[in-house]
Amino acid sequence: MAAVSPLAVPLPALPPLDGVRMAAAAAGIRYPGRRDAVLVELAPGTTVAGVFTRNKCPGAPVDWCRAALRGGRARAVVVNAGNANVFTGAAGREAVRATADTAAGLLGCPTRQVFLASTGVIGEALPYDRLTAALPAMHADLRPDAWEDAARGIMTTDTFPKAATRTARIGDGEVRITGIVKGSGMIAPDMATMLGFVFTDAKIPAPLLQKMLTAGVDRSFNCTTVDSDTSTSDTVLLFATGQARHARVPATGGSATGGPLLRAFRAALFAVLHDLALAVVRDGEGAQKLVRIDVSGAVSPRSARRVALAIGNSPLVKTAIAGGDANWGRIVMAVGKAGEPAERDKLSVAVGGVWMARAGSLVPDYDEAPVVAHMTGREIAIAVDLGLGGGRATAWTCDLTHGYIDINGAYRS
Amino acid sequence: MAAVSPLAVPLPALPPLDGVRMAAAAAGIRYPGRRDAVLVELAPGTTVAGVFTRNKCPGAPVDWCRAALRGGRARAVVVNAGNANVFTGAAGREAVRATADTAAGLLGCPTRQVFLASTGVIGEALPYDRLTAALPAMHADLRPDAWEDAARGIMTTDTFPKAATRTARIGDGEVRITGIVKGSGMIAPDMATMLGFVFTDAKIPAPLLQKMLTAGVDRSFNCTTVDSDTSTSDTVLLFATGQARHARVPATGGSATGGPLLRAFRAALFAVLHDLALAVVRDGEGAQKLVRIDVSGAVSPRSARRVALAIGNSPLVKTAIAGGDANWGRIVMAVGKAGEPAERDKLSVAVGGVWMARAGSLVPDYDEAPVVAHMTGREIAIAVDLGLGGGRATAWTCDLTHGYIDINGAYRS
Repeated sequence: MAAVSPLAVPLPALPPLDGVRMAAAAAGIRYPGRRDAVLVELAPGTTVAGVFTRNKCPGAPVDWCRAALRGGRARAVVVNAGNANVFTGAAGREAVRATADTAAGLLGCPTRQVFLASTGVIGEALPYDRLTAALPAMHADLRPDAWEDAARGIMTTDTFPKAATRTARIGDGEVRITGIVKGSGMIAPDMATMLGFVFTDAKIPAPLLQKMLTAGVDRSFNCTTVDSDTSTSDTVLLFATGQARHARVPATGGSATGGPLLRAFRAALFAVLHDLALAVVRDGEGAQKLVRIDVSGAVSPRSARRVALAIGNSPLVKTAIAGGDANWGRIVMAVGKAGEPAERDKLSVAVGGVWMARAGSLVPDYDEAPVVAHMTGREIAIAVDLGLGGGRATAWTCDLTHGYIDINGAYRS
Repeated sequence: MAAVSPLAVPLPALPPLDGVRMAAAAAGIRYPGRRDAVLVELAPGTTVAGVFTRNKCPGAPVDWCRAALRGGRARAVVVNAGNANVFTGAAGREAVRATADTAAGLLGCPTRQVFLASTGVIGEALPYDRLTAALPAMHADLRPDAWEDAARGIMTTDTFPKAATRTARIGDGEVRITGIVKGSGMIAPDMATMLGFVFTDAKIPAPLLQKMLTAGVDRSFNCTTVDSDTSTSDTVLLFATGQARHARVPATGGSATGGPLLRAFRAALFAVLHDLALAVVRDGEGAQKLVRIDVSGAVSPRSARRVALAIGNSPLVKTAIAGGDANWGRIVMAVGKAGEPAERDKLSVAVGGVWMARAGSLVPDYDEAPVVAHMTGREIAIAVDLGLGGGRATAWTCDLTHGYIDINGAYRS
C-alpha cells in the first residue's frame, strides 16, 4: 500500500443530495479485502450528460455509456475498480450487458438507463459474475450518506479519496453539486479523465447539462496531466436528479451555456470540476509537488493551453522540479517543442513569481533567493509570457519522481 | 560519474578519412579535468549538408549553422560540451561570431565556412574566451586519427563515445563515411538529434548531399526517442571532403536521392546514421533496455511512425518495460492516444515475436513463457499491426528507469 500523497487534501463534508443513494461492496474483482464496486441509484427523471476519452481504443463501458447517453436519462451507475474491461472484445460487451441488466432488474428501470464504468487492468476479461453477485446486497444497502464509501470504492492506485461539493442558487432556489473522482496514472485527459461522477439535485434538461459539462471539463480536467498517457477509460458523468425546487430551466437555457439563470450554477459546477481535476493531479502517481503553469501572450487560448501542457508533459521539466531545480532552460525547451507559434527573443519565464528570463535572455541580476525557497515548497508556480498576443491558459501537473517508476515498473494496471 | 550504459557498444576501428583532421582539448567550459572542446579541419573544397532542430527556441550555434549552410562549403567545425549557448541573446551571437573568427583566422578560411555546435546547460552565457584560447593549441595538434578524442570531447551525460563507419563504392572508386554523435537526454528528434557529425571523402555537390542527409536523418534519428523532449541544439552535419577518387557525381545526381551511381553510398550513409541514432538510444539517460517498435498495417508510413513514437514516448509503456512486464494493455492505450487512424477491433500486438492480442482481444492461449524470457533481456521487440493499410515504420527507444530520475533531478543541464 503506497503512502498517502503529501499533496492530499481532506474529504470535505458531503451532505446527502436529494435523489441520490449509493452503496459500495467488496466484490473481489482484483483487490483482496477492500471495496471495489459501487452502485449509485438516481431518482426517476434524472437527466445525464457525459464526456469520454478520445483514445481510439476505448473500453466496453465507454462504448456502452456513449450509446446510453443518447436517451438523456439515468437511473443508476455501476462502477468497479481493478479491471478496466478494455480490449476484451465480445467478452467485454457481454460483461457490460449482463451488469446493466442485473442493475436494471433490481431498480425496475430500462437497461439503457444504467451507466457503467470500470477502471484497472487492461485486456483481462472482467469477472462480471462477481459484480452482478454483489449488486443485490448493494441495492439493499443504498444510503444517501455513503459518499466516502463510494469515493473509496472506485480507487485504484489512488492514495486518498477525492470529492468536491458546492451550492448555487437557480432563481430563488438553492441546489447542490457534489462529485467524486479517481486517478491517478494514465492521466492526460483529451476529453475527460479517468472516472468522475458529479451529481446535482437541480432540474436541468439533458442537452443543456451536456453543454455545461463539456465546457467545464474543457477548463478543468483537460488542463491537467500526470504522465501524458491518455486513458482508455476516461469518463466524466454529470447527473441532475431534479429534486430541488427552483425556477424552471428552459430546454435551451437562453444560450449555449445556460444564460443568466444558470450563471451561479455554472460557476459552482466549474468549481467542483476544478477541485476534482486538481485532486487527481495531487494524487498523481509518485507526486511530491503540485505544479501550476500559467501561459500568457499566446496567439490564442488554445495555443496557450498546448504550450502549457507541453511544459507540463516534459519529463525534463518534471524531474527538475522533483529535484528542486528552477531549471528555466528546460521550460524554454518545452515551449519551443510545443509546435505552437513562439519566438525565442520575445519569450519570458518566471518561477515562483520571479521573472528569471525576459525577451530571450536571462535577467542578469534577478533575485535567486526567493526562487530557491519557492522550489522547496509543495506548490510550484511557473509562468511563461510568449509576447505574441492575448491568449492565456493555465495547466496543472505534478513532478516526476522515483515513486512513479516504482508504481509503474511493478504494478500491472 | 555515471556507470557505462549496459547497452553500450564498443567504438569500431576508425581509420583516417582523407581531408579530415581533428583535435580535442580541455577548455574548462564546465567539466573539470576532461576534454570538452573539439576542432575538426576539413580540406579545401569540402561540401556540407545539415539538418537542425525544429524547436522554436534554437541555440545561437544553430542559427549560425543555418546561415553558414547557404554557402554549401565548410573548412572547420568547432564543438564544445558543457554549455549549449541557448537563450543567451546578444551574448550568444557574440560568442559564435568570436569563435568562428578565431578558427577562420587559424585556418585561413572565410568565417562563414566555420560550423559551430554547443551542447550542455541552457541559458548561461558561453565563456567563449576559454574556447578561443584553446583553439591555437588544438590547431597545432590536428591529427587524422583522433576520432575517439573527438567522440569523447563532445559528450555531456553520455556514458560512452559513439561512432560508426562504412565504406561504399561510387562507380569504380571506394569512399568511406565516418560519423560521431552524442546524446543522451532531451532526445525526441523532430528533424535531427543533438549533435552528430558525419564525414566522407566522397566528392558530392552540396545540394545532393543535403537531399541524402535529410532523407537519411528522417529514417534514423527521427525514428528515435529517449524522453519526448526535443532539444534546442539538435544538429547533424555531413561533410564531403572530395579527396577520394571516384566517378564524377553530377550536381543533380540524376534523381532526388542521387540515382544509381550513389545507390551504394546512400545505403552506407543511411547505415552510418542508423548506427549513430541507435547509439544515442543505447545511451539514453538511465537506459537499461533497448526497445524496437515495429508498426504495420497503418494508413501511411507517416501514420505508422507517429503510432510507433507514441508507444516509444509513453511513460507507462517504458516503465513497464523497465519492470520486465510485457504490458500489452499499455501498448494498446498508447496506440489509441496517438491521434492516428486506429480501430480497436482490428488491432494486434506482439512482444518478443509472440502475438498476445489479435483483432481487439487477448489471444486466449498464447505461449507466455517465451514472452517472459524475452522481457528479461536487454533488447525488447514490440510489434503492432493496425490492420488498416500498408503503412509501416520502426521506432527505437529505451526504458524509463530510476536512473533517468537520478540524472535529471540532480543535473542542471
